Amino acid sequence: GAPSGEEGGAALMVKEGVMDNPKIDAIFGIHINAQTEIGKIKYKSGSFMAAADWFTIKVKGKQTHGSQPWLGVDPIAVASQIITGLQMIVSRQSELTKAPVVITVGKINGGVRENIIPEEMTMAGTIRTLDDQMQKDVHERIKTTAQKIAESMGATAEVSIETKTLVTYNTPELVKQMLPSLEKAIGKENVYETEWTTGAEDFSYYRLKAPAFFFNVGGMPRGKNVKDAAPHHTPDFYIDDSRLDVGIKAFCNIVFDYQPTAKTARISNDKIPMEILSEQVSVENYFPAQFFDVPFQPFGFESAFAF
Amino acid sequence: GAPSGEEGGAALMVKEGVMDNPKIDAIFGIHINAQTEIGKIKYKSGSFMAAADWFTIKVKGKQTHGSQPWLGVDPIAVASQIITGLQMIVSRQSELTKAPVVITVGKINGGVRENIIPEEMTMAGTIRTLDDQMQKDVHERIKTTAQKIAESMGATAEVSIETKTLVTYNTPELVKQMLPSLEKAIGKENVYETEWTTGAEDFSYYRLKAPAFFFNVGGMPRGKNVKDAAPHHTPDFYIDDSRLDVGIKAFCNIVFDYQPTAKTARISNDKIPMEILSEQVSVENYFPAQFFDVPFQPFGFESAFAF
Repeated sequence: GAPSGEEGGAALMVKEGVMDNPKIDAIFGIHINAQTEIGKIKYKSGSFMAAADWFTIKVKGKQTHGSQPWLGVDPIAVASQIITGLQMIVSRQSELTKAPVVITVGKINGGVRENIIPEEMTMAGTIRTLDDQMQKDVHERIKTTAQKIAESMGATAEVSIETKTLVTYNTPELVKQMLPSLEKAIGKENVYETEWTTGAEDFSYYRLKAPAFFFNVGGMPRGKNVKDAAPHHTPDFYIDDSRLDVGIKAFCNIVFDYQPTAKTARISNDKIPMEILSEQVSVENYFPAQFFDVPFQPFGFESAFAF
Repeated sequence: GAPSGEEGGAALMVKEGVMDNPKIDAIFGIHINAQTEIGKIKYKSGSFMAAADWFTIKVKGKQTHGSQPWLGVDPIAVASQIITGLQMIVSRQSELTKAPVVITVGKINGGVRENIIPEEMTMAGTIRTLDDQMQKDVHERIKTTAQKIAESMGATAEVSIETKTLVTYNTPELVKQMLPSLEKAIGKENVYETEWTTGAEDFSYYRLKAPAFFFNVGGMPRGKNVKDAAPHHTPDFYIDDSRLDVGIKAFCNIVFDYQPTAKTARISNDKIPMEILSEQVSVENYFPAQFFDVPFQPFGFESAFAF
């Protein structure tokens, strides 16, 4: 991923044609994981990791003295109702049996002094969805919630949403096809399917162009409780990297086992709802991708930025 | 009033004995007013201007990644419910037929990044009450509201409240006694009683020690609509000072008419509930007040600080 206002990571690489020249038939990704026991491989068919969006909501009221609120419009009081309203998108409006949804306001700022009602205030946060259509739906509901609650008190709300990653979707047919290769690497008993995660991965952009399979290899010391293992991007994050051979073996097996002539996986990718995707990524081949010389290329990117 | 963390204004002067040495029998205050038509005097018997308190609420949650709110406690979501709860102290818990109440959160700050739920957040605001007992009651309800809502989600809330001014209370018997002196100055038809105001005045501290009467003299150009006249402490504030003689005449009449031997007013002051007041002002006579040499002293302070 790239910092706000810049392009980068998988989204830019796809835009620049990395999947098209040469044409990629299927794409695989691996990521070491601090909450997967060392010597094990963790995966999930279908939606695995969340789409991450960042949003900003600017509430505009009307400045006045704090002692006479009726002479203005209080954007902080409006914002408090919007924050509560956003949680009701999750709890009252999202079909949680289909996939989880998370909406977090991570920062909020408004006002300069105890006795002045400010003209405006700003909040910003992140959205996690695990289904393309729910992602699109939540975006609309956030706009409606913020704008209508603001209007109810005579304020206005400007909502902007920036998509950081798509849903990291593992094409079920490709997962089914390649699972034996992973099991060969570490033993069938050490490869297990997991729940979805609300973490995000810009590997998700590659599946715009080809069937994809992204999985985790264990880096948590054996016997440690998963709940006690600090997640990635936290101060206590710890990786035991003594079994990197598991990932190497898994990827070698994939390379040798994958049949580029098998069309099953490529066709199945068409089942992913593509509406959002086509809006977000315009596939312009600005620069010819000259750095691939084989039609199949295993990837193992670690994003430099946390979503 | 004094800046936060410093003492000053009427509260400090009372503390230093200005009302005691010499003993003040009654105290009068006048303030030019941008929303009172020039050539008129505006007053209110009983509670006239509000008590102003400033409060700070610090909500402590538990930091976590924005994608996994269940691993932490979200202080911003808690704060949004507290802000809504504070408004319900006004609309659901205050006896508004007795006197108005205003609670304003004027500034709010928390978090640094879209995808991190912060450890804590802070909000600050002001309280306006026009009855000593309601002031005390609202303080308790703010603490209860913030703490219990925080506890409901596993967070904690620290509430601190700083009293800036008391209710500016005009002793009814003193008002009744001295009204003819004001009417002599400008004509009976130009002296009128008004509603209470949520503005605040540290003149309020003098009534801890003697019957008091604080009133406004007009500074708004004749014929201008009150609603169009910008209040004090706003950028468009405008005073027409061409009739300062009204105030001078009113005060001269008070000085010549007031009978210091009349005990009615002093006795009536005892009817003000003094519970809060005695908590807030310890009347220690640190320094002998040497700057008064008559038992009656008309005051006309303009506070240098806006509450």
